[in-house]
Amino acid sequence: MAKRTTKKTAGRRKTTTKKAAAPAKVKRAGARTHAPSRGGSVKKKTSRKTVKKVARRSGVSRGKVRSGKMIYYFGSLRTEGDGSMKELLGGKGANLAEMTSIGLPVPAGFTITTKTCGKYYDEGRKLPEGLMREVNKNIALLEKEMGKRFGDESDPLLMSVRSGAAVSMPGMMDTILNLGLTDAAVEGLAEKVGNRRFAFDAYRRLINMFGNVVMGVAHERFEKAFDQLKEGYGVENDTDVSEEGLVELCERYKEVYRLYVGEDFPQDPIKQLELSIEAVFKSWNADRAISYRRLSGISGLEGTAVNVQAMVFGNMGDDCGTGVAFTRDPSTGKNSFYGEFLINAQGEDVVAGIRTPKPVSEMPKWNKKIHSELIKIKTKLEKHYREMQDIEFTIERGKLFMLQTRSGKRTGAAAVKIACDMVKEKLITEKEAILRIPANDLTQLLLPSFDPAAKKGADVLTVGLPASPGAAVGHPAFSAVQAVARAHAGEKVILVRNETSPEDVDGMHSAAGILTSTGGMTSHAAVVARGWGKCCVAGAGAIQIDEERGEFTVNGRTFGRGDMISIDGSTGEVMTGVVNRIEPTLSGDFSKVMRWADKYRTLGVRTNADAPADAERARGFGAAGIGLCRTEHMFFEGERITAMRQMILAETVSDREAALETLLPFQRDDFIGIFRAMKGCPVTIRLLDPPLHEFLPHEEAAQQEVADSLDIDVEQVQKRVAMLHELNPMLGHRGCRLAVTYPEILRMQVRAIVQAAIECQREKVKVLPEIMIPLVGVWQELSTLREQVEHTIAQVKHEQGWKRKLDILIGTMIEIPRAALTADEIARHADFFSFGTNDLTQLTYGYSRDDVGTFLPDYLQSEILSVDPFQSLDQTGVGQLVAMGIEKGRSERKGLKIGICGEHGGDPASVVFCHRVGMDYVSCSPFRVPIARLAAAQAALLD
Amino acid sequence: MAKRTTKKTAGRRKTTTKKAAAPAKVKRAGARTHAPSRGGSVKKKTSRKTVKKVARRSGVSRGKVRSGKMIYYFGSLRTEGDGSMKELLGGKGANLAEMTSIGLPVPAGFTITTKTCGKYYDEGRKLPEGLMREVNKNIALLEKEMGKRFGDESDPLLMSVRSGAAVSMPGMMDTILNLGLTDAAVEGLAEKVGNRRFAFDAYRRLINMFGNVVMGVAHERFEKAFDQLKEGYGVENDTDVSEEGLVELCERYKEVYRLYVGEDFPQDPIKQLELSIEAVFKSWNADRAISYRRLSGISGLEGTAVNVQAMVFGNMGDDCGTGVAFTRDPSTGKNSFYGEFLINAQGEDVVAGIRTPKPVSEMPKWNKKIHSELIKIKTKLEKHYREMQDIEFTIERGKLFMLQTRSGKRTGAAAVKIACDMVKEKLITEKEAILRIPANDLTQLLLPSFDPAAKKGADVLTVGLPASPGAAVGHPAFSAVQAVARAHAGEKVILVRNETSPEDVDGMHSAAGILTSTGGMTSHAAVVARGWGKCCVAGAGAIQIDEERGEFTVNGRTFGRGDMISIDGSTGEVMTGVVNRIEPTLSGDFSKVMRWADKYRTLGVRTNADAPADAERARGFGAAGIGLCRTEHMFFEGERITAMRQMILAETVSDREAALETLLPFQRDDFIGIFRAMKGCPVTIRLLDPPLHEFLPHEEAAQQEVADSLDIDVEQVQKRVAMLHELNPMLGHRGCRLAVTYPEILRMQVRAIVQAAIECQREKVKVLPEIMIPLVGVWQELSTLREQVEHTIAQVKHEQGWKRKLDILIGTMIEIPRAALTADEIARHADFFSFGTNDLTQLTYGYSRDDVGTFLPDYLQSEILSVDPFQSLDQTGVGQLVAMGIEKGRSERKGLKIGICGEHGGDPASVVFCHRVGMDYVSCSPFRVPIARLAAAQAALLD
Repeated sequence: MAKRTTKKTAGRRKTTTKKAAAPAKVKRAGARTHAPSRGGSVKKKTSRKTVKKVARRSGVSRGKVRSGKMIYYFGSLRTEGDGSMKELLGGKGANLAEMTSIGLPVPAGFTITTKTCGKYYDEGRKLPEGLMREVNKNIALLEKEMGKRFGDESDPLLMSVRSGAAVSMPGMMDTILNLGLTDAAVEGLAEKVGNRRFAFDAYRRLINMFGNVVMGVAHERFEKAFDQLKEGYGVENDTDVSEEGLVELCERYKEVYRLYVGEDFPQDPIKQLELSIEAVFKSWNADRAISYRRLSGISGLEGTAVNVQAMVFGNMGDDCGTGVAFTRDPSTGKNSFYGEFLINAQGEDVVAGIRTPKPVSEMPKWNKKIHSELIKIKTKLEKHYREMQDIEFTIERGKLFMLQTRSGKRTGAAAVKIACDMVKEKLITEKEAILRIPANDLTQLLLPSFDPAAKKGADVLTVGLPASPGAAVGHPAFSAVQAVARAHAGEKVILVRNETSPEDVDGMHSAAGILTSTGGMTSHAAVVARGWGKCCVAGAGAIQIDEERGEFTVNGRTFGRGDMISIDGSTGEVMTGVVNRIEPTLSGDFSKVMRWADKYRTLGVRTNADAPADAERARGFGAAGIGLCRTEHMFFEGERITAMRQMILAETVSDREAALETLLPFQRDDFIGIFRAMKGCPVTIRLLDPPLHEFLPHEEAAQQEVADSLDIDVEQVQKRVAMLHELNPMLGHRGCRLAVTYPEILRMQVRAIVQAAIECQREKVKVLPEIMIPLVGVWQELSTLREQVEHTIAQVKHEQGWKRKLDILIGTMIEIPRAALTADEIARHADFFSFGTNDLTQLTYGYSRDDVGTFLPDYLQSEILSVDPFQSLDQTGVGQLVAMGIEKGRSERKGLKIGICGEHGGDPASVVFCHRVGMDYVSCSPFRVPIARLAAAQAALLD
Repeated sequence: MAKRTTKKTAGRRKTTTKKAAAPAKVKRAGARTHAPSRGGSVKKKTSRKTVKKVARRSGVSRGKVRSGKMIYYFGSLRTEGDGSMKELLGGKGANLAEMTSIGLPVPAGFTITTKTCGKYYDEGRKLPEGLMREVNKNIALLEKEMGKRFGDESDPLLMSVRSGAAVSMPGMMDTILNLGLTDAAVEGLAEKVGNRRFAFDAYRRLINMFGNVVMGVAHERFEKAFDQLKEGYGVENDTDVSEEGLVELCERYKEVYRLYVGEDFPQDPIKQLELSIEAVFKSWNADRAISYRRLSGISGLEGTAVNVQAMVFGNMGDDCGTGVAFTRDPSTGKNSFYGEFLINAQGEDVVAGIRTPKPVSEMPKWNKKIHSELIKIKTKLEKHYREMQDIEFTIERGKLFMLQTRSGKRTGAAAVKIACDMVKEKLITEKEAILRIPANDLTQLLLPSFDPAAKKGADVLTVGLPASPGAAVGHPAFSAVQAVARAHAGEKVILVRNETSPEDVDGMHSAAGILTSTGGMTSHAAVVARGWGKCCVAGAGAIQIDEERGEFTVNGRTFGRGDMISIDGSTGEVMTGVVNRIEPTLSGDFSKVMRWADKYRTLGVRTNADAPADAERARGFGAAGIGLCRTEHMFFEGERITAMRQMILAETVSDREAALETLLPFQRDDFIGIFRAMKGCPVTIRLLDPPLHEFLPHEEAAQQEVADSLDIDVEQVQKRVAMLHELNPMLGHRGCRLAVTYPEILRMQVRAIVQAAIECQREKVKVLPEIMIPLVGVWQELSTLREQVEHTIAQVKHEQGWKRKLDILIGTMIEIPRAALTADEIARHADFFSFGTNDLTQLTYGYSRDDVGTFLPDYLQSEILSVDPFQSLDQTGVGQLVAMGIEKGRSERKGLKIGICGEHGGDPASVVFCHRVGMDYVSCSPFRVPIARLAAAQAALLD
């Protein structure tokens, strides 16, 4: 068992690493002065469907698509595109146009269309006739708008060039910034801005990026030159290099360029631009981009667009700055402008958490005008998009530029509150509100929180920023490696760091919570933690961390790895010891959203629960019944496991029956408890499913114990274990196959169910048991066992003298491919179907869930699979069997009741699928019931 | 591995037991004076289809079906039905009518229709109005024909009553014989036949059968009374009881009857008959019959017919007799009348082997007239049925009665010879000849035989009857239990018995051959052995067996379990020691049949072969290529396994590549050998498939050896074994999943294939390699790996300076359900599909082949499954996926080449399926190639 756990965890870890790698890349992507877009590249997978959708939308585009037109300008003088023209202008280009057209101060620029890229290839990789003429015209317009000239030697207009296809696509060309700098222009810029260090820093970045990205010189060549220079100057950090050093660095970089390119770094800005444009076009057919399109099934796109945009800088001096903000609080959803900014800084400084930024509310102290401008923009944006926005801005010498706006990521709680508030504010309708909340994000609201009573007496050490809600308790760990190791060993740990970096993601994932001493609400730790729904308190400045000694000090008190701390991600409180937590409840806005969801959904939601307590909890979350009650878990406690083992070790049917007799009352009481908790809702009880060897221990000491407890020889236990051993237990003697060989087990279970049902009915508790026969592959299994179930029901009714009605359905799980393929035959003997998509996925793919860790990470890594099929239902393959099973089943038995009880029943995408194929209900774990209810409503609304 | 083998064998054993149980039942079914039908109940499973076919045929029936008519008479005075009326008269009734109508001397009688049975139920389980009136009319006719009266007290007409539905169905009523005997009639009979013992023996049988079958008195009640009587008379066997004893026994039986039935045994013959008819009707809805129909999916039948027929006796004296015969030799197919008879005996005496019957050729010495009558009948039957017949006859006081005729079971060799002869005789056409030979029976012709050269010098101990062809060598075993135990331990044994009984079937199955000292060509041993195609020498009378001492003596020489003997089932020779055997070849009639088959079939037949020798042999059997060349077997010998283990234990890619470098030349030479053997025929090579752990030992000693041979620590080996351990290896890291993780293995294998192909082409040996990527479930696997294969092919061609064409197809196995479900996507990247129906069956059913022994026997026993789906393709479930895979595959790639390479490729029923769904070829083991060729021709002819 230990092995299994380790494997699974390892599998998850790797997957996670991958997941987290994307933001890491963004961080490292070099100068991000211009357009910080934290987390921006963590885009959802693009399917063929999305492409089609994009295509359809562009059909009704508001902008004027003129055939032959190669460039669309955006700026105050003229804006030719809009947000609907993604197919032609790419996602980025269309968005820049949209922002400009609603009057936001966006640095002007122009977009070369995707069609032009297509033409480039059609004409044998040559820039289309007339393209550079049009480019020059647009530059002229841009120069006019900006009041600067491209290539000017005293006050040069600088530009950025970026790729941007209709769908986000890794592997295409990176950004090139600062185009337009030359040996002469850099001096002009230095003089103009009065900051020679700034100017040469910009120039060396251009040479590096251009050399690397456009001309293919390895980045390491430049790095090496920089390292040598730093060594010469005796400094360690890039930022410590003096103005003089940067001037020298530019010379060295030009030498590197000359050496590897074979010619000088181009001093003609137009040449720089032309080569950059061509490099973007070429990158459309870079190996990685082609392979990405192939693997993602993307086809039918013309090419990539090229975005050329005027540069703005937030790091030219103290009248400059940069910041990010949300139009509402992304953590709680409160309707208040919520952002941070840094003076004289590049965008990435805010994200990286190197300096702690100031809240936007303090901005008036620095620049009142900019602040009020921002507030106005905020309001305008919410009105325009009718959605909470995440914006990025830069102030260049007292002038505000909007660099990005997009729907803001938010916590589940914030999503719920914002949706409800916007309905109240009449910005959106109830239906829109439902569609706005990512169903999965409700997970966060379903996490436990600290008991307010317990918190009253808590010893609060300090209060940091409430970066990501949740209530975490654990021992401090001071490095990611430590956190991973200790968490794997079963310890609950809180990762305590000054600030986290992409290297820490493994540790962050393993930790129960994250606590940082620097960094703001938009720091790495905060962003990553919110993305995962993990509890995080950031910027708790009172905490001093000594990583080497493995302790932190706060107000003179020191805590090490032996101590326990509790952190509250909703308030920022850091407390000593274990503070009690309470289970979440559905209240306020959450319950309002649930009510709306119930109003619109048509799909039932049940829960998987094996015990009365789980059943009770699920009822609280709105489950309308139990879709899967596994009976095997009931046999593991105390006396039961002994009787169970006695049963398994019995050599005759009568010995087996005697042992089962002992189990019967336990089983009956379990069912009575569950029936009472479900108060008349249907309860689907699955008969014993796992192979019998799971109930016997495999180590000798434990086997001896069993032998002693049953007063038999250990050899007898070992013999039975050996007999029960299977090479592939997943495909072995389990499920209904057990009932065929040992019908007495089935009889005992059915007796217990019927006795419990009759007892409840006598107590006036309504019951609706549904007996589910697992792992059926041929209809004869079901018909044979059904006969036995019916016989036993009749027998118990007779024994109990029960003359009144007793509604007991008898159905089966569809979890073997053959069952789906022959569902018509099976339906003749079934009152209901429940799709067991865990096993169905295992068998349809030929993957063992227990062993998939050996190759699934490689499959996800190399994008052979885009998603773990055990997490989200594979609609193409497994889904085909599900749809076939439903169609065939209902062809034979009209209105056959059909549900799903695999773990997919709580996955929103899978819930939508279940709705579409016409299931009656989904069943999932108690905590996912609200998620399923919301997803079901979304499915109904999207129908 | 040992475990696996044991399990499999155990599974097979149980299955076999079941198979053999049917003849056993026939044996025990009591008096069979009337209609011996050895092996008659080993009918093929009846499917819904058969029922439909029956129904269709009855639509064009030659007899007159008159609505309302409840009884059809058959006899010399009138015959109202015929062989086509199975639905109305049941199988037995229709056959009796047919025999009568072609003029055979069949004991007259009449059949009450199945419709009448339906009416019985429609009217609330009451004999339909007027039925008994009609019965009486038919009895009158029968009395007229037989010249005796039913219930007559001086010369009573006796009758038998039997059930008989349209399809054979276990669980319905057994036979009742001797109806019409009463206290008075028995005395009349005794006097009339002059044999009081015979008469009272008949009477006590009637009371017993009637009491048990009609009135439900437990058989044991009668048995107990008989035992007590025997004790009183101091005798042991039934046959030792005197005439006086049998008279007393009838009294005792009547007492038993009175005690448990509550009334006297009916002395009115019509009452006996009426109650018997009703009992037959009732048995139609006996639990076992209902359950059989349910499990076999039989529905739409009206009920059972009732056959009432005059009794004839072969045991009334020395002018009586009984026998069985074949119109041609069922062992060799020679066109000579071939049968055996016993004087003054019941039919079952011939079958049971208690007395050794005489060959029919000796009959003229006893009764020349009867013999010539039989010869005439034989000729008439073959003309009428145009098929070799198996007949049963009884001579009552010098009068011959035909009791049965049907197509005779025969050995494969006989089937081939008879079919060829009948074509020569112009009885049948070539096409009919092809359809006449059960493809599976060719197995027997493909068995090895003794080398004629070796036989010249053999020490022949004695010559018995050549009961079932074949050449078996082994140690004698003198009991079934011993044979089973020793065979399981790996020993080759010959079961040596005086005669076998149904209790011996396990031992017979385990043995390499069977040798008996008594019993004829139609004895139990002979019939069962022929059914299985197992070598048997019967009736070797010179052999004296001492079971207790475990030895046999022949001509003064004694042989025990330590000695070796060789038996020749084609000649009856019993030889000492090991006589050399030779492989079979296709010659004479066999090769003629194969030529005919090739003329008509459209399906290609390839072979599964991993070594040049197998490939060569398969070519000899007519394989048109290799459909599956498994590469893993190539890695187990000497140096190879060391390099393989080195590869698996390598910690870096470069170490792995170094080990693979060692394997490359071996692999290349294997392919060269196979390409040469296949002389330009296509060779499908499957890349490495099994999980890597299969190449490492799991016991510590062997691990230590590996460690020593590779000069590493044993811990390293153990660590790797532990890492590679999987809970369900069948669903784990294998097939193309290996190639995704370790592409270097794929590259080595492809290199070897391409190098071998180029080398062969240089030698002017044409090659057509097809590279097959196994276990594909998502098209991305295939597209990714195909790219790598293509890249490697190009690389090797370049290295080798090969500029000319090299046809290498790249395709995949369809063996994962998801691959069949998404075959359209996969076909875009595949040049061919090969259905791996072994794994496809495992996954579609969720059965592990290695573990299925734990429940499959129970499933077959309880008829949840009618056939092991690993032996014959499940057309309903797995077949659906196959058909879908072909359709989807070809929808995307027209004319996609498609084959099958699971073991089903050699199963005739599965071959017919493969033809029907439009495959291009099947591939099977070399010895099954001729079987597949014949089955393919049959499929084409039935199309």
